[in-house]
Amino acid sequence: MIRTRLTDLFILTLPILSAPMAGAGGGALAAAVSRAGGLGFIGGGYGDPVWIEQQMTLAGDTPVGVGLISWKLADNPAVLDQVLAAKPAALFLSFGDPAEYVPAIRAAGVPLILQVQSLRDAQHAADLGADVIVAQGAEAGGHGESRATMTLVPEVADWLAGSGSGSEAVLVAAGGIADGRGLAASLMLGAEGAVMGTRLYASDESLAHDNMIAASVAASGDDSLRTSVPDMARRLRWPGRYSVRVLKNAFTRRWQGDMAGLADAIEVEAPRWVAAQAAGDTEVANTIVGEAAGLIRDRCPAAQIIQETADQAEALMARFGSQEET
Amino acid sequence: MIRTRLTDLFILTLPILSAPMAGAGGGALAAAVSRAGGLGFIGGGYGDPVWIEQQMTLAGDTPVGVGLISWKLADNPAVLDQVLAAKPAALFLSFGDPAEYVPAIRAAGVPLILQVQSLRDAQHAADLGADVIVAQGAEAGGHGESRATMTLVPEVADWLAGSGSGSEAVLVAAGGIADGRGLAASLMLGAEGAVMGTRLYASDESLAHDNMIAASVAASGDDSLRTSVPDMARRLRWPGRYSVRVLKNAFTRRWQGDMAGLADAIEVEAPRWVAAQAAGDTEVANTIVGEAAGLIRDRCPAAQIIQETADQAEALMARFGSQEET
Repeated sequence: MIRTRLTDLFILTLPILSAPMAGAGGGALAAAVSRAGGLGFIGGGYGDPVWIEQQMTLAGDTPVGVGLISWKLADNPAVLDQVLAAKPAALFLSFGDPAEYVPAIRAAGVPLILQVQSLRDAQHAADLGADVIVAQGAEAGGHGESRATMTLVPEVADWLAGSGSGSEAVLVAAGGIADGRGLAASLMLGAEGAVMGTRLYASDESLAHDNMIAASVAASGDDSLRTSVPDMARRLRWPGRYSVRVLKNAFTRRWQGDMAGLADAIEVEAPRWVAAQAAGDTEVANTIVGEAAGLIRDRCPAAQIIQETADQAEALMARFGSQEET
Repeated sequence: MIRTRLTDLFILTLPILSAPMAGAGGGALAAAVSRAGGLGFIGGGYGDPVWIEQQMTLAGDTPVGVGLISWKLADNPAVLDQVLAAKPAALFLSFGDPAEYVPAIRAAGVPLILQVQSLRDAQHAADLGADVIVAQGAEAGGHGESRATMTLVPEVADWLAGSGSGSEAVLVAAGGIADGRGLAASLMLGAEGAVMGTRLYASDESLAHDNMIAASVAASGDDSLRTSVPDMARRLRWPGRYSVRVLKNAFTRRWQGDMAGLADAIEVEAPRWVAAQAAGDTEVANTIVGEAAGLIRDRCPAAQIIQETADQAEALMARFGSQEET
């Protein structure tokens, strides 16, 4: 039991959210995180309405949230209406300006979580009336930008606490948090909880390919990089400010310094990458995890991950807290 | 009073080291940090023997350490002998392979601090017998690499604690730490203390130009970037793996995407950059600080910075520690 403004907001026992990981975070993982005392999220990602509905059905009666990619919603805004109609515990929007989608979310009475990667975007999120602002550092797996969790979280906390913000948003840290050390550090930095992605990518309930999960467990944080190679390989039109953190492999080594060459070879390389992803070929398709891969030793049930993270954070804080009295 | 293996090693009252900032960290700043209960470092940087001797004289009888850049020592190895002869409290080597300098440091009986930016280099530092390993994240000001403090520190801590390391090195965090929140987070992540750079860049004792200090206080962390532009502009032959974090300005906006153009214009741009540095022109020369600039509100005495950081960390840890009991 760690009580913060985040646990009060969603009536949780532990201040942990699962990252809405496209391709890895389905209904079973989200429900397992929620049953363990946190709040789990389905990674709605690029907005496939059939898949999202299947995963919400899998979550059953357990309250879970749904994450979507803001810039991608423009291609199919009806997905948002579908998700809202199913009354998720929260809607978690990342990457791009979410402004046009806020009124519908408000009207549905669904709590709004906005993930940001800079102070400037945190200020915009506050202005939009976000209930929760997730400050995500560049060490995170998947898409993101350049700022680090270590400085972004306290800087956003200071701004929210200042008289100018007018926001009551709850601040949550994301990026690099895989255990109780990261959760305790997040609380020290001024967050009210943490988002965990990479650690849950290696959970029993993860939908990632077994080979990718094994690669994430074996990797050091040194083995990851931020790149746009996988986005070009998948022909996704990501805004240029965002890159994706993945494990380095033969494919990124070949193309990272030669994006023009990849563009020229795309008719061959795009289907090769997509086929490799389905086949679990970790040297062509990329394992989408963060630097925290270096902190992971095993694949295990999500409930165990959540509970051990909370227990370790509590023990650490109790130890340092009592030391102060001596 | 925060007791850790770092404070035990150097007989300190607070587990804080000042970063050996070339151009900003002289004898007065180092001595002020040491007198406040931490351990201060003179930023010997590129190894100007006359300047280093002046600064050690300024520190007087107060124990301080000296930092040097490993790859640069090859140009003038005699600087190391000069520094060791003056019996610094510790020698702090960063950037490049320090192996060939370790025997002389050992022979002089001076404690050896090695700063690293990856797990791989941390393992090398442990093999070299470092007394202290500083794990520096990319959010740090000045030179560095890509890994974040949030994941690098616990990953190195796990490796040092494992049976394979055979190292007793004390682990210290660097990068993004500007107040008690960062110090407390560092301790939670498994470090025994923290290096502070950017915050002390804005101290009364800093040797940086007043204009640069004012720019660092005014900046958000969003305003910094990692780049090689200032190194090319200064004609420094930095190994390609290292970039330098500085505040963005007109000069980096002009050249960041056009390094070949800067190389072509170097006969004009190099003297212009150097003159701007001396004149405090922050739109041409760069203010060399990290993302933690966004956490700084004022310029003040180093002793106040060190004491407030420790007090805030102690209060935070006591608050969260006692909450666990309820």
